[in-house]
Amino acid sequence: MAPRRFTAPVVLPADPSCSVLRDGVVDVDAAGRIAHCGPAAGAPPFEGPVTALPGILLPGLVNAHAHSPMVLFRGQGGDLPLLRWLHEVIWPAEARLRPDDVRTGMMLGSVEMLRHGVTTSAEMYFHGEQLADAVLTTGARVLLGAPIIELPATDWRAMTTAVDRWIDADGLRFGPGQRIELGYGPHSAYMLPEKALRAITESAVARGALVQIHVAEAAAEDAAQRAEYGSVPRLLAEIGMLDGRVIAAHAVHLSDEDIVLLAAHGAGVAHCPGSNAKLASGTARLAELRAAAVAVGLGTDGPASNDDLDLWQEAQLAALLARLSASDCTALTAADALLLATRGGAAALGRDDLGALEPGRWADLVHVDVDDPAFATGLDVPDEQLLANLVWAAGSRRVRDVWVAGEQVVAGGEPTRVDRRATQAAVAEAATRLRG
Amino acid sequence: MAPRRFTAPVVLPADPSCSVLRDGVVDVDAAGRIAHCGPAAGAPPFEGPVTALPGILLPGLVNAHAHSPMVLFRGQGGDLPLLRWLHEVIWPAEARLRPDDVRTGMMLGSVEMLRHGVTTSAEMYFHGEQLADAVLTTGARVLLGAPIIELPATDWRAMTTAVDRWIDADGLRFGPGQRIELGYGPHSAYMLPEKALRAITESAVARGALVQIHVAEAAAEDAAQRAEYGSVPRLLAEIGMLDGRVIAAHAVHLSDEDIVLLAAHGAGVAHCPGSNAKLASGTARLAELRAAAVAVGLGTDGPASNDDLDLWQEAQLAALLARLSASDCTALTAADALLLATRGGAAALGRDDLGALEPGRWADLVHVDVDDPAFATGLDVPDEQLLANLVWAAGSRRVRDVWVAGEQVVAGGEPTRVDRRATQAAVAEAATRLRG
Repeated sequence: MAPRRFTAPVVLPADPSCSVLRDGVVDVDAAGRIAHCGPAAGAPPFEGPVTALPGILLPGLVNAHAHSPMVLFRGQGGDLPLLRWLHEVIWPAEARLRPDDVRTGMMLGSVEMLRHGVTTSAEMYFHGEQLADAVLTTGARVLLGAPIIELPATDWRAMTTAVDRWIDADGLRFGPGQRIELGYGPHSAYMLPEKALRAITESAVARGALVQIHVAEAAAEDAAQRAEYGSVPRLLAEIGMLDGRVIAAHAVHLSDEDIVLLAAHGAGVAHCPGSNAKLASGTARLAELRAAAVAVGLGTDGPASNDDLDLWQEAQLAALLARLSASDCTALTAADALLLATRGGAAALGRDDLGALEPGRWADLVHVDVDDPAFATGLDVPDEQLLANLVWAAGSRRVRDVWVAGEQVVAGGEPTRVDRRATQAAVAEAATRLRG
Repeated sequence: MAPRRFTAPVVLPADPSCSVLRDGVVDVDAAGRIAHCGPAAGAPPFEGPVTALPGILLPGLVNAHAHSPMVLFRGQGGDLPLLRWLHEVIWPAEARLRPDDVRTGMMLGSVEMLRHGVTTSAEMYFHGEQLADAVLTTGARVLLGAPIIELPATDWRAMTTAVDRWIDADGLRFGPGQRIELGYGPHSAYMLPEKALRAITESAVARGALVQIHVAEAAAEDAAQRAEYGSVPRLLAEIGMLDGRVIAAHAVHLSDEDIVLLAAHGAGVAHCPGSNAKLASGTARLAELRAAAVAVGLGTDGPASNDDLDLWQEAQLAALLARLSASDCTALTAADALLLATRGGAAALGRDDLGALEPGRWADLVHVDVDDPAFATGLDVPDEQLLANLVWAAGSRRVRDVWVAGEQVVAGGEPTRVDRRATQAAVAEAATRLRG
């Protein structure tokens, strides 16, 4: 790929202060990484193709917790209580899943996220080879937490060993910094014995791999864990899991001590405000996590229940709930929300090669068209107003073009590598069979 | 207009049980009202033009509380604390407003709502003639609460008399059941003396006009009112305002007694979850209001602060917050949320000619295209799943066609009567001047 320059009237590099560059330039090198990002005035000389974009250019969003193949079950039994939903709807349907169904579901989930400007997702779902293949097909990025769980029909040792072997075999191609990154997805401390968590920690730390794990999602589950372990963060600290790369998904019911532990060990958190509200799990303590400098990203959770993989809506909701919780309408600004969805998610996943337009990071780019009422007051408004228009009013609505590692994977709102309608039709066919 | 038939694979009449009609038919009479709605099998014979729609047909949404011309100030200073925002940003800008700016702002607000499938809005804003003219131009519907407020530069008596005269002169053209309905918009009990509220009540009741008033929005304001009056609902009951047509906007901080009063007097409530969260005002007691059978609709509030006039997002948020408040993930279903946004809003405004596809009501129709990942599992899914896909996953994204009184005002996502880009450009020009 030849080096390339992008220009746009507004560039949002997602640096820590959420700068708004006017008349900005982003250079991408032959490897698909950012070579330069800054104002046009003073940009280095460049000879090669220049793409002049009319709107806002920002980094691809990072979905820090998802089970995207569950688009196959979207909205199915979604108004049932959680346990009935799992027992009567989801588990019976998942028991009918074929490996290629996961590819079919992930294809659509990936297309959907790309169209929303989400270029990376952290996924926990079965049949990882199929999931990875789908993402390689659409051109997105994924951090795969291969599920490890103790059920009557499963063997956590065999599941862990399978991940070990996959990473040992494919770790160069599917490793940190690559399009697919393999890692471990122990379900939770309540679905695995402590010895399993210890063994997974040992495997993951030895390989520098990310561990994705559900933590303190629902109140009843969390109370039981606290009775057994003091708290899940305390357990994970004791067994050394927090000293490796780890992201705690949900993390709704945290004590002050839990937050201190997560911060001290550099663990990441995937805040999932939509899922936690829809399932009535509660509201995570975002303000306290941020105050403690815990790396926090946003997650959609699975689309069976939450329902559209639109990370912009999670960013909006994170702000609304943080403001309600704090009774303070300045508790989370549009800039804060945007950083959670980009740089924050990358940091929470331990991936400093994603989530911002900085030299050396991957050129995962999103172009938001501004021909919309959301931007009717114009681009020549104060920075705060422009960010408000983007984050609160436009959201995913006007995402038009998306690049991953410098390659265009969405053009004019449609995926470039796959046919969206065919992807939808494949899901329709699989979903019909899976409903039984 | 010749009578016309619409057919669609799915019709949602928004009847009290939120039925899902498969292979449905909606007949519209020459006056633009619904003549029939039901399954195709057993529909009355029809000779005339038939429009076969490929997606979901439902009634136009009703925005029960808005200040839509404030698109002129969208996102301006939006991360400031409320009082600084009003004093430093909004009031100085509003002081520069010319009457035609209100027309310019309302044109875009109206276009934006129509594109989201919102056909009716209840508006409180200055320069009502300009506002009404804008809505007559776009083809939407509005219930205008002409503002009455006591400020150093205003005279509530003169403002009330002006509304009296306008209704007396134009009440037939701009009356209940018409495209524009004139009414009274006393700002609140804290911005008007009791005698003003009494005089406005007298005027409104004599004319059968709707009163739109802010009630118990912010905690501090509400506490002051309770110290003076017991509570605002109690005051409004005592002076007889609740015995007329009245909608209480926000109504966040209500006691059990307040809810009983609103229910007993048949007053409506405009629930504004997005505004109340963004401004950290609190969360209204939706479950209790519904349990008491208070007529509740949804409002976006003003787009300066809340930010996109998308009532689907308010429906989603109403459900999420209700579920969090009740710690019950079944507290508000997709069907409940859809009814709040349609039939509920009409009922709260005392307009039983809107918000549902029932014979005699206006043919305000919305067509949602289902060529989207949100509907990838197909239309042939259980009713609950289809409603979940529409309300939780699709929202406004796929609203493609909209009719008001049987006239198409949005086609393929764009307004038919006005040029969207010209409308945006006019706002850009006005907004630049108003920023000063």
